[in-house]
Amino acid sequence: MVGELLVLGISGSPRTGNTEILVKEALNAVKEFTSNIITKYVSLSDLEINHCTGCFGCTANSKTDVYCTIFHDDMNKLYPLLEKCKGLIIGAPVYFGDLNSKMKAFIDRTEPFVRYGKSPHAGALRNKIGAGIANAYNRNGGIETTLMSIHHFFFIHDMIVVGTGPDLTPGCYLGGAGVTYPKRSINKKAVLDDELGIKSARIIGRRVAELCQMIYLR
Amino acid sequence: MVGELLVLGISGSPRTGNTEILVKEALNAVKEFTSNIITKYVSLSDLEINHCTGCFGCTANSKTDVYCTIFHDDMNKLYPLLEKCKGLIIGAPVYFGDLNSKMKAFIDRTEPFVRYGKSPHAGALRNKIGAGIANAYNRNGGIETTLMSIHHFFFIHDMIVVGTGPDLTPGCYLGGAGVTYPKRSINKKAVLDDELGIKSARIIGRRVAELCQMIYLR
Amino acid sequence: MVGELLVLGISGSPRTGNTEILVKEALNAVKEFTSNIITKYVSLSDLEINHCTGCFGCTANSKTDVYCTIFHDDMNKLYPLLEKCKGLIIGAPVYFGDLNSKMKAFIDRTEPFVRYGKSPHAGALRNKIGAGIANAYNRNGGIETTLMSIHHFFFIHDMIVVGTGPDLTPGCYLGGAGVTYPKRSINKKAVLDDELGIKSARIIGRRVAELCQMIYLR
Amino acid sequence: MVGELLVLGISGSPRTGNTEILVKEALNAVKEFTSNIITKYVSLSDLEINHCTGCFGCTANSKTDVYCTIFHDDMNKLYPLLEKCKGLIIGAPVYFGDLNSKMKAFIDRTEPFVRYGKSPHAGALRNKIGAGIANAYNRNGGIETTLMSIHHFFFIHDMIVVGTGPDLTPGCYLGGAGVTYPKRSINKKAVLDDELGIKSARIIGRRVAELCQMIYLR
Repeated sequence: MVGELLVLGISGSPRTGNTEILVKEALNAVKEFTSNIITKYVSLSDLEINHCTGCFGCTANSKTDVYCTIFHDDMNKLYPLLEKCKGLIIGAPVYFGDLNSKMKAFIDRTEPFVRYGKSPHAGALRNKIGAGIANAYNRNGGIETTLMSIHHFFFIHDMIVVGTGPDLTPGCYLGGAGVTYPKRSINKKAVLDDELGIKSARIIGRRVAELCQMIYLR
Repeated sequence: MVGELLVLGISGSPRTGNTEILVKEALNAVKEFTSNIITKYVSLSDLEINHCTGCFGCTANSKTDVYCTIFHDDMNKLYPLLEKCKGLIIGAPVYFGDLNSKMKAFIDRTEPFVRYGKSPHAGALRNKIGAGIANAYNRNGGIETTLMSIHHFFFIHDMIVVGTGPDLTPGCYLGGAGVTYPKRSINKKAVLDDELGIKSARIIGRRVAELCQMIYLR
Repeated sequence: MVGELLVLGISGSPRTGNTEILVKEALNAVKEFTSNIITKYVSLSDLEINHCTGCFGCTANSKTDVYCTIFHDDMNKLYPLLEKCKGLIIGAPVYFGDLNSKMKAFIDRTEPFVRYGKSPHAGALRNKIGAGIANAYNRNGGIETTLMSIHHFFFIHDMIVVGTGPDLTPGCYLGGAGVTYPKRSINKKAVLDDELGIKSARIIGRRVAELCQMIYLR
Repeated sequence: MVGELLVLGISGSPRTGNTEILVKEALNAVKEFTSNIITKYVSLSDLEINHCTGCFGCTANSKTDVYCTIFHDDMNKLYPLLEKCKGLIIGAPVYFGDLNSKMKAFIDRTEPFVRYGKSPHAGALRNKIGAGIANAYNRNGGIETTLMSIHHFFFIHDMIVVGTGPDLTPGCYLGGAGVTYPKRSINKKAVLDDELGIKSARIIGRRVAELCQMIYLR
């Protein structure tokens, strides 16, 4: 199974920089844990992702090459990656105490995968390993709530959810947690000064890799 | 001050129907409480609201007729309403355990009002009364978490947050809470069968009106 | 009304030290805001507070000098204070991502005040101002979730909830937020090194005072 | 390994009845899924569990027959069960929007198992499967927030967290969710009328069994 198992890391930030750094750190930790996992990084920044209209067309769809029945946008590039991966790391910048709207648009558009649908894609994320990363300017301004929103998304897809793993991380148990303060988050490398944050991202990556090995690589 | 005080109700749903019904019920209860308050209903469904890019241009802006420095979309219609209102009722359909992405896009774009900015609009929502309404297909599938996300937005703007008021409401203390099950949420009037939900929306409206009177109408 | 309005600050910590420091800082900020408010600090550390048994006896009670019908413990000292105060600041150390069990025991025992009860004490906390403070060893290990738990308690009692007020506080919008790391929380003065935390506690105190003035002192 | 793997179900309710019913339903579903798992039900109702004093003595302890260094109460019966089990189902009645204080007291006292400690018991819950059940009178009065509090506890112990599994459950994705309304929760069998709630408890049990099989029974 060498080289076949995919862990996907997605940054929802409209910008390059801090959230990207954290997600890539997590993916690096995945690769360092085992060479049996390949990783792929995706940024939503340049992708066109329309807001779900709540039409439920996707859950009634019966064609394997169709996901969303309304929009033909960049989600069509992401659906096959989501189906292929066994581990999914969602990284979001914290905007108003929650994940940014672009990431939420992505999440809302995963409706074709919900288990109760009749689509051939229903249940595609079931039993996959999920972990979250949040990056914020404010130390306690929404990191935990953003991670819980990511978890909710995972639970709705029947995913298996893990937090930061076995090592000491005085920071966040729910997932990776980066803080850019005292630098502004507009500074693209601000999170590099946050030792705890970088460490938490690496730990969350390793934790996803551990679970992939425990469940899928034996 | 008769007829001058505005309570604004916003539905984030991409559709007409259930969330709209709940927000309008809340606004009706506002009007029934006192004739000294006028109300306005806004639906985001047909509005163009781009995703905030996190540029912080708005917080550095110094012009009174400028809010967002990047996009010239329908948020420009909403900013003056937000500045004028004294009460704000945010209604969102629950998508993946949280508010839908269109509503989140709206929230993210209120950055010109954050208090730490240098914009003439900074602090525009301060001390206004905020209350939330959530509508879901699933009885326990994200109503509470959606309301808490709405509250977080309120707190970031220094708003005064209230839940459901003095009457019995075996349902939700955090805000209005409608459930469409057993009908699908695609049914535009499904929530009308949810007596508790309709009642909770009316109570949250009255509660906002009470606070407006307590703080602004005496 | 000079000197008559009471803001009550309660620390749920089983220990003296960090949470106590934060709650007292908040109360100091209340007093500095106006001399028309008196404050009182209460620590739960040495109080006997039994777990609510869920009997609902208190909500059916009709005697004014009775609150809980089961236990005659130190809650009887706290009930009259809760009835008297107009502002309530709840401070809790974060244990396992939420408020500590002693504070939760206190919260559960406020059932005599719930509005749907028939007790003469029903609704006693209605329209009072509530704000939360959390102190943790871990930077992102439950401060936000603890504050949301405190808010939930406030909402259930129809209280008016505020977060950190008008000043810049890169930390937490939901309430006061202290972090003891890198010192252990066993160090009773560790939070004094957390400039943001101390500041957030002072801001939350002033915010409660502002609302008390806005609603009760005019 | 037949008959050796233990799934432990704990009800935090001070009463027998609704939460007990839900936890036992979950354990029944575990047994129906496979005969390779044994289950044990524990009620906290009659157990003496003191509030953690935050002394951190347990994390510095080096003796295998010692857990808490302060109290010698009924937690000593529970620690070995927690160490033995591979799946843990935590059921709590919702009190004031969160788990009841007795359950929180139990959670706070699991400090000997935290991974950063030096105790021989450190990390005892690592990689075990966790799932939550909440029971409430109010339909949307804290079920989701209670389940998230339970999850936080699981994440802090490095557990693997699952929600309701593959079957349709219009109710709650985060875990089992029972509602006693319109009957009062004082009615010990009220939740039996909640078809969704009972079903969600059974699904959460089966989901824990599935994960135990996936990770520990092959």
